[in-house]
Amino acid sequence: MNDKTSATNHSNDDLFAAIDLGSNSFHMIIAREAHGQMQVIDKHKEMVRLRSGLDKNGKLTEKAFKEGIGCLERFGQRIKDIPADNVRAVGTNTLRNAKNSREFLNQAKVALGHGIQIIAGQEEARLIYLGVAHGLPASDEQRLVMDIGGGSTEYIIGKQFENSHLTSTEMGCVSITQTYFPKGKITNENFNEAVSKCRQMLRPHRRTLRKKGWDIAIGASGSIKSIGQILETNSWAESGISLQGMLELTKELIKSGSAENAKIAGLKDERRPVLIGGLAILIATFIELNIEHMQVSQNALREGLVFDTLGRLHAEDVREISVSAMQQWMKVDIEQADMVAKTAKSLYKQSHNTWDLHSEGYDVKRLLKWACRLHEIGVSISFKRSRHHSAYLIAQADMAGFNQQEKQILSALVVNQRGKYSTDTHEDIDDSFKRIMPYLTVLLRLAVRIHRGRDLEQVDPILRIIDDTELHLEFDENWLDEHPLTRLDLETEAKYLEKFGFTLTCE
Amino acid sequence: MNDKTSATNHSNDDLFAAIDLGSNSFHMIIAREAHGQMQVIDKHKEMVRLRSGLDKNGKLTEKAFKEGIGCLERFGQRIKDIPADNVRAVGTNTLRNAKNSREFLNQAKVALGHGIQIIAGQEEARLIYLGVAHGLPASDEQRLVMDIGGGSTEYIIGKQFENSHLTSTEMGCVSITQTYFPKGKITNENFNEAVSKCRQMLRPHRRTLRKKGWDIAIGASGSIKSIGQILETNSWAESGISLQGMLELTKELIKSGSAENAKIAGLKDERRPVLIGGLAILIATFIELNIEHMQVSQNALREGLVFDTLGRLHAEDVREISVSAMQQWMKVDIEQADMVAKTAKSLYKQSHNTWDLHSEGYDVKRLLKWACRLHEIGVSISFKRSRHHSAYLIAQADMAGFNQQEKQILSALVVNQRGKYSTDTHEDIDDSFKRIMPYLTVLLRLAVRIHRGRDLEQVDPILRIIDDTELHLEFDENWLDEHPLTRLDLETEAKYLEKFGFTLTCE
Repeated sequence: MNDKTSATNHSNDDLFAAIDLGSNSFHMIIAREAHGQMQVIDKHKEMVRLRSGLDKNGKLTEKAFKEGIGCLERFGQRIKDIPADNVRAVGTNTLRNAKNSREFLNQAKVALGHGIQIIAGQEEARLIYLGVAHGLPASDEQRLVMDIGGGSTEYIIGKQFENSHLTSTEMGCVSITQTYFPKGKITNENFNEAVSKCRQMLRPHRRTLRKKGWDIAIGASGSIKSIGQILETNSWAESGISLQGMLELTKELIKSGSAENAKIAGLKDERRPVLIGGLAILIATFIELNIEHMQVSQNALREGLVFDTLGRLHAEDVREISVSAMQQWMKVDIEQADMVAKTAKSLYKQSHNTWDLHSEGYDVKRLLKWACRLHEIGVSISFKRSRHHSAYLIAQADMAGFNQQEKQILSALVVNQRGKYSTDTHEDIDDSFKRIMPYLTVLLRLAVRIHRGRDLEQVDPILRIIDDTELHLEFDENWLDEHPLTRLDLETEAKYLEKFGFTLTCE
Repeated sequence: MNDKTSATNHSNDDLFAAIDLGSNSFHMIIAREAHGQMQVIDKHKEMVRLRSGLDKNGKLTEKAFKEGIGCLERFGQRIKDIPADNVRAVGTNTLRNAKNSREFLNQAKVALGHGIQIIAGQEEARLIYLGVAHGLPASDEQRLVMDIGGGSTEYIIGKQFENSHLTSTEMGCVSITQTYFPKGKITNENFNEAVSKCRQMLRPHRRTLRKKGWDIAIGASGSIKSIGQILETNSWAESGISLQGMLELTKELIKSGSAENAKIAGLKDERRPVLIGGLAILIATFIELNIEHMQVSQNALREGLVFDTLGRLHAEDVREISVSAMQQWMKVDIEQADMVAKTAKSLYKQSHNTWDLHSEGYDVKRLLKWACRLHEIGVSISFKRSRHHSAYLIAQADMAGFNQQEKQILSALVVNQRGKYSTDTHEDIDDSFKRIMPYLTVLLRLAVRIHRGRDLEQVDPILRIIDDTELHLEFDENWLDEHPLTRLDLETEAKYLEKFGFTLTCE
């Protein structure tokens, strides 16, 4: 590389990409880190309308499927030179629920050249807040942030960059439009019905949100930006969004009988098919939460993804905080968990090259560590079946920063920490990761076994892998003789391992 | 009733009966409350050996089945005049695990004239401690209490009448005897193997137990009493049980080659078949927990049951404490839960006669109250699927005082607090209770619906039951007009109720 090239062609190492496969549209932003700041240098949006493309059986139709993949091919071309660790692609509500989402995700991975993580509503809410917060001036105000998606709407309360409450509700601009405005017809009656339904959906959250309170309300997402734009263009509101302004817009829409036919300044064509659902949700929110004014944010989920990725690289990984919080809540014996993690780490170091413990898009080593730190959380529910309780909690609990795939992996590792090895829970794990699951499970199991005596004694055996599945553990001289119960434990373990194709000898 | 009768024939109202269907023997004690004290007036024991009667498929053999029922018929005769509320009958390890235990319990109920509650190992441990503690002089010493059952062994740490740690392990005198001493043959080798296995089973608990520590160790159960008796008779220990004494006994047993042939003073014939398993467990315990001396308690599980029953009648019900503890741990919105409970109680009052909401052996009204207090515990795991998380926690978590049947009922109520009504979880509920499940579910659902707005407003509608499944809710004049969202909520609920055979109208 000569000087000229390096001066004109930026390296791509400081580029980040965030891709959001929403229910109504797919978004991509490319950002660059410069002087500790994030600078968005490129944005792409395609109205894929995945949610409208769900058939009666809850499957994506062929058309929606193809359009989605086509869009990701185009996105893929743009990001092919960006380092894999700097790319995050997430799917939300529709991909969480579609019956054939697995099939879609497999093809999507090929098209994009990068795996797609499915995130739960709570995680979506957290990332939205992060994105919105980074777009606001620094202040000490308490904020209510809302985001209307195609299939879900998120409400978050927070201050500065920290959220204190996350809510995800199952109503979105696409789903409400489809249910209450078939063929796009808008009447006074069906609009009122839609608003009532949205208010009903919000009711269980109302008191908690109000109790927490806020100084300013901020809205993100296409629906809200679009409504804000219309109110501004028509001078129906002084700035941002007001209930009065939205009622003016509603009047116009009812008069026109549909959004398709409405002649409203500032209304873009691409927004027409789902405007009415978004409007119903927003009006319901203003009423139930008693909001007078809402300001519109340009940032959303994808900006949150970029800042989250940056945080991970700079060692402010929110996942570490989640794991610690879970340990605290479940009163884990942390010394014991750390001891298991230490031994697992040592075994990992001795085996990861031979076994090629690597899977793109996953931090394998840290997943193993988190499995160790969380493997006993279920004991606080009951010692009986505790490994199942641990797995249940990991799979079901809100844990900020974790996507669904990571939770599935952790859950499957933890359920197999001892006893009979079961691959029942492997079904939902990415194919690319499945290969290394048995090896990681063996490492976790050995670490758990070795510390079964809970005497917090540091042990650092040498692990030799003789022929892929033939393992030999070598302890310090006389150590096993002095620890006959550990020897017995390892003999028991050897019998279990044999059943899933590994042999274990010790000395 | 004339004076003479009342003078000579005690009323049975102050009698209590506790029946313990153990894995090795069935026990019954009859006690009388006098001047606030409990006085045992009658004891029965039959060596039913249920556990030995498990076939290869984990089912009770016909012989064991019949012997068990026969024994309960005899017990039943003795308790037929004791008030139902004063009788508690519990099944432990073997009945927890036998594949045909449901069948057995149905017949047992007829034989005994009283339903049998299945309790988990933790609950067993709690009751054992309670029983043992009531047999000891008042002191401030920290105690380790152990009890060797046929299929499980319990370890409890406590002070006075409060336990601070409960442990249940899956090794018992019958199971260890069967596994390591087939045909009763005792050798040096298989004895060592059995002790090693028991030590291995104890290892995960060792550190926690030792860390908590104790001033005195106390053993309960037939195995321990029997070993204590032998050591005393042969002067192999000064008092109680010592490791040295047990090693003497072991030497004798190995010399004889089996417990059946051994000529050992103090060894009763009925104990011979399972002595060796109990001895292996006790020796392993002394080694792992570093015990020098153990004193023998005459009290056990059944005495605990009597004191627990007495506590319930005197309003010291440990179940109330468990429910509160669970609410705290899971950060329940207690005001909301209390409001739901209040409304459910009012609805119950208005319906229990018409629907005959009664089932022998169950406190139906309090079960409904507990369901209300616990219905939102799952929210702290995740709002998404929270009713399922609530049900999971209730079914799986250790909750002192609750038997398995009560937990199943609470779990099934809570999972149906809203949404689609499912009877999947009703399978394990007692037939006698199944009839009233739909009615209780309706009461819970209505209370939850009415308070969906979470505004802590007291509502006390009149519930009219027109024709068993035809319900009419009457609110104060204008109340529904002022609460249009509650009206909408109730309309939604009416649609759900219709699907399981109820109609609901409101005004």
